[in-house]
Amino acid sequence: MRATLLHGAHDVRLEDVPDPVLQLPTDAIVRVTAACVCGSDLWGYRGVRPVKEPRRVGHELVGVVEEVGSQVTSLRPGDFVIAPFALGDGTCAHCRNGIWTSCVRGAAWGAPDKDGLLVDGAQGEYVRTPFADANLVATPGLPDDALVPSLLTLSDVMGTGHHAAVSARVGPGSTVVVVGDGAVGLCAVLASRRLGAARVIAMSRHADRQAIAREFGATDIVAERGAEGAAVVRDLLDGVGADAVLECVGTRESMEQALDVTRPGGYVGYVGVPAGGPELPIGTMFSGNLNVAGGVAPVRTYLPELLAEVLDGTINPGRVFDLEVPLGQVGEAYAAMDERRAVKSLLRPQA
Amino acid sequence: MRATLLHGAHDVRLEDVPDPVLQLPTDAIVRVTAACVCGSDLWGYRGVRPVKEPRRVGHELVGVVEEVGSQVTSLRPGDFVIAPFALGDGTCAHCRNGIWTSCVRGAAWGAPDKDGLLVDGAQGEYVRTPFADANLVATPGLPDDALVPSLLTLSDVMGTGHHAAVSARVGPGSTVVVVGDGAVGLCAVLASRRLGAARVIAMSRHADRQAIAREFGATDIVAERGAEGAAVVRDLLDGVGADAVLECVGTRESMEQALDVTRPGGYVGYVGVPAGGPELPIGTMFSGNLNVAGGVAPVRTYLPELLAEVLDGTINPGRVFDLEVPLGQVGEAYAAMDERRAVKSLLRPQA
Repeated sequence: MRATLLHGAHDVRLEDVPDPVLQLPTDAIVRVTAACVCGSDLWGYRGVRPVKEPRRVGHELVGVVEEVGSQVTSLRPGDFVIAPFALGDGTCAHCRNGIWTSCVRGAAWGAPDKDGLLVDGAQGEYVRTPFADANLVATPGLPDDALVPSLLTLSDVMGTGHHAAVSARVGPGSTVVVVGDGAVGLCAVLASRRLGAARVIAMSRHADRQAIAREFGATDIVAERGAEGAAVVRDLLDGVGADAVLECVGTRESMEQALDVTRPGGYVGYVGVPAGGPELPIGTMFSGNLNVAGGVAPVRTYLPELLAEVLDGTINPGRVFDLEVPLGQVGEAYAAMDERRAVKSLLRPQA
Repeated sequence: MRATLLHGAHDVRLEDVPDPVLQLPTDAIVRVTAACVCGSDLWGYRGVRPVKEPRRVGHELVGVVEEVGSQVTSLRPGDFVIAPFALGDGTCAHCRNGIWTSCVRGAAWGAPDKDGLLVDGAQGEYVRTPFADANLVATPGLPDDALVPSLLTLSDVMGTGHHAAVSARVGPGSTVVVVGDGAVGLCAVLASRRLGAARVIAMSRHADRQAIAREFGATDIVAERGAEGAAVVRDLLDGVGADAVLECVGTRESMEQALDVTRPGGYVGYVGVPAGGPELPIGTMFSGNLNVAGGVAPVRTYLPELLAEVLDGTINPGRVFDLEVPLGQVGEAYAAMDERRAVKSLLRPQA
């Protein structure tokens, strides 16, 4: 089959690799019908994280079950499924607590699992999925193709934006600020409105992203950044700050921006992969009772709840995709996001 | 009147100072009947925080209202009152959000208020209290003297331990670890059991404090510290870690200890005044979904709820006091805590 490998900075290649086969009785083989490029994939692509040797990439996918192991009971060939970006066994204490990302037998797309067996990257034609019963969530019947982009967001960005909102305790009447206007930030806007937020201020400098933020329910857009942006936000919130601030970037500057507009006793819900150094300013947090919650999103936990609303049309997070290309053009999918020509690129591995 | 001043390292002095008088119509003058020394007072006493010029000290007190300003409506001379360690106006947005410690017109004992008028320190015979209606909580009638130590803890340590527990979302069935066996840590044990925790592991190396922790409801005591302590705690919790870890010290080591025994998705509730540097390890927090909540405790918010249980005998946090001296021996009150001969010292300004 064909799969994407990252070779180094600005060097992704589609290559022929072995077709995956069932390795364990709890595995399933999935034919990937849609995958995508994540903001976090750009770190390797941009050389921020050096690439030691070529590796499989991609961690967001939907597809059709091709084959199941002998112990898989809830899935059968032909099922349309959504896969979370982090894989768990579904039975350990952490999975039972809802934190699948900390599963003791957890696995990640594109890397060997705890048994040392490769789990294929999502940016390819097929994947072997460990603990298939636990991880894959099937839709009732084959979904309409128009729903595929939204279903694909449940693999990562919509669940991640939702995690930011849940971690920051967004609820009915909340005032919310979203820092970051990438796909996750935009989904955080949608998640906040869905949870009942009264006010959602999206910080964004790009007209195309501002438009999606408004569609997703942002009540205000703030284009300024830094101290100036914080002043504008605080003015909008009567000088008090926001109940919940969703940090969807991961840099030191974005976290400072977030803490700067949180009201005393409020929450920063953060899901941006930390790239800005290992520190949070505990002195500032302490004096203002600024709480910091979140982390790598356990999207599997949220999948059933969000899936129901995608299927009935209540939410349409797939709007974050503004480029769609066949797998053969994966290089363009990366380049467009890297150059900010696209918010998020969708790949069609079977096209 | 006599009041305590901190002159420098290991140098507290009882001195004659002007009697406080009503300065504003919202003030009350309170005759202090019991005050105490706080763990945080030891920082100045030990020279960790340099003393630029002699200053009034003490921020925990109960007493009897002596005189009220013309706009004070809920209090009258003779009322027995408890004062929170941080003073607010009770009406600003932050006070209404329950975070009195961030009041826009907030004041602290022993320092000038926003009008530049001195608010006396609590370790003295009398204090001027700004926004008396808002800050002072009266008991129904004069309480039995045996209740005074417990009532005094509502001024700070019991409310602070409670804030740690509430911030860490302790509730029915929670597994809890308390880091720190000072008065706040011990009160955090009591607060956790009161909130329904199923398991409360107190980390303590001192037999006298271990005994109080057990009295307050600790189910387990762990005397080990650091990596060894973390291993023992994790063993007690089936390798999973605790739902809630209450950090009641404020050093870098104690925060590391706390994060090290928190389960993925769990909360560190921290109330120790940060003394170990400005940083929290966001990478560790992110990968394990370790949430950090808390800060300087808005004890005024919790006072009515906790007061009811002190008055009816449900909780007896006053057990943390193991030394009681007249104000004239304030030096001994400090020295005993500094030398760890006492957990917490109670002062009787009228004795």
